[in-house]
Amino acid sequence: MAEFGLIERIRARAAHPRDDVVLGIGDDAALLQPPPGMQLVVAMDTLNDGVHFPHGTEAARVGWKALAVNLSDLAAMGAEPAWCTLSLSLPDGDPAWVDGFLDGFLALAGEHRVALVGGDTTRGPLSISVTVLGFVDPGRALRRDGARVGDQVWVSGSLGAAAAALEQWRAGGARDAALGERLDRPRPRVALGRALGGVASACIDVSDGLLADLGHVCAASAVGVLLDIDALPGADRLRRWFGGEAVRTLQVAGGDDYELCFTVPAGADAIARAAAGAAATGVEVTRVGTVVAGQGVQAVDRDGRPWRPERPGHEHFA
Amino acid sequence: MAEFGLIERIRARAAHPRDDVVLGIGDDAALLQPPPGMQLVVAMDTLNDGVHFPHGTEAARVGWKALAVNLSDLAAMGAEPAWCTLSLSLPDGDPAWVDGFLDGFLALAGEHRVALVGGDTTRGPLSISVTVLGFVDPGRALRRDGARVGDQVWVSGSLGAAAAALEQWRAGGARDAALGERLDRPRPRVALGRALGGVASACIDVSDGLLADLGHVCAASAVGVLLDIDALPGADRLRRWFGGEAVRTLQVAGGDDYELCFTVPAGADAIARAAAGAAATGVEVTRVGTVVAGQGVQAVDRDGRPWRPERPGHEHFA
Repeated sequence: MAEFGLIERIRARAAHPRDDVVLGIGDDAALLQPPPGMQLVVAMDTLNDGVHFPHGTEAARVGWKALAVNLSDLAAMGAEPAWCTLSLSLPDGDPAWVDGFLDGFLALAGEHRVALVGGDTTRGPLSISVTVLGFVDPGRALRRDGARVGDQVWVSGSLGAAAAALEQWRAGGARDAALGERLDRPRPRVALGRALGGVASACIDVSDGLLADLGHVCAASAVGVLLDIDALPGADRLRRWFGGEAVRTLQVAGGDDYELCFTVPAGADAIARAAAGAAATGVEVTRVGTVVAGQGVQAVDRDGRPWRPERPGHEHFA
Repeated sequence: MAEFGLIERIRARAAHPRDDVVLGIGDDAALLQPPPGMQLVVAMDTLNDGVHFPHGTEAARVGWKALAVNLSDLAAMGAEPAWCTLSLSLPDGDPAWVDGFLDGFLALAGEHRVALVGGDTTRGPLSISVTVLGFVDPGRALRRDGARVGDQVWVSGSLGAAAAALEQWRAGGARDAALGERLDRPRPRVALGRALGGVASACIDVSDGLLADLGHVCAASAVGVLLDIDALPGADRLRRWFGGEAVRTLQVAGGDDYELCFTVPAGADAIARAAAGAAATGVEVTRVGTVVAGQGVQAVDRDGRPWRPERPGHEHFA
């Protein structure tokens, strides 16, 4: 199918109606009306075939994930997503694949009232780039550089499920469907991120593995973190399939969790507000550590002994 | 080189200082402060190795072009560019290639005061996605759907040079350096686009070839265009190397021109304002046709005889 046919196919399905879209797909660029007084929040992430998802992954899952990883970045800023653009590089113009991709992409876009307003379709190895745009009240954005000594460290949901599913897929044996769902259909914590705006002192989404991502918070905030390796949520499910050390490594170095890791000032008021915000969004949150003076993340087990993973966090080009 | 090293390398060089960048590269997303009352304009384009540029193209030229094609889309909307995000997929993390790429990318960004505020670096076949963001006064955006019967059709600069350079590169013989420069370093007509805001009735950038792109204007505006094939600017230079029919085909179907094609209401006032706007930006503009009732572009030669190209416009997946 030719490029203009593909664009028309996408345009025909793309419209999540929003009053602030002056002009969507079909011109040289999109025209959008930002709400007055808000800051614009912009993130861009790319998924490549065989790198970010196994070759042959169902198109709908690729579509879902391509938007989810971007919405997760906006969640980590405490932002409200509004619009996105999509660039699809396809080895051929297979309309059935594009339809499947849109099934997943637009299902998630609809859940978050995000309008697909533009982008590009080109020929090339399968690759998907997405840019998401959203808003945040000035001063309420969650950044990486606000953690202070004494703050508590929390994470949402559970850690390690996606990495565990990938291990099972690679091993080729039995697979846990619930873990697989976490790999294929991560749920960006958008509502939680917004609830934490003005409450959490720092926030990041866990995409490269908790140790690596928390390390970014430490570096940006010029602090250290003491991480309780045995407090990480989600270990029970993983222990059905993996040994204790493997579980710990999956949880801190696995990547693809798309949970939020955030810090909260230690005062009772801030903690109560963070807990109330999380409760209102229905997302479980777990305290996993403390911000300390120093640099980097030190993991300790339940007996206070230092713990190191078998392998470092996921990193491209490693 | 590892991903975080690459990001740091990009961040260290990226900063075009702008007061409206609250938070640039280095967090989960960029934080930006849009100017009050303006509409946001967003375009996203991808270049793939071997599809949009020949494999082995110098990194600096790839960098320049990756931003140029996006700025050209903003130019076609009459918008002022402000910020961009960049996603680089690299087969390996070669820092020398990235440095060269940034040389070209940031040179053009600096010319237009565009700040690189975020993006992604991933492993994969060489591919570059860029999203540009800019502004336009409400009601002054140049769209494709505003052409009316009787309007004049104009183009900026010259047509066919980039396609001619590609032909010469493919043929492997003598090459015209000035034509090659047009292929490698297209100059987005940002100032001209802004000057045409509120004056031109429709506008598009010429990226897929004049016939194809003018066809989009016709479709969006529900009009036809009578195109004077012998009025197209830039033919003289091409005739040094190519025969008459080949010149015409390069000019209307070649692609990669990144000129603006725009329509102007026929009244003397509008034409004078468009001409004055163009003159102020130092860009030559040439009248090449007339908007007529009907649909699609009909090309005619200087004697009024219908003319058809040997091949249709450039199209992916064709």
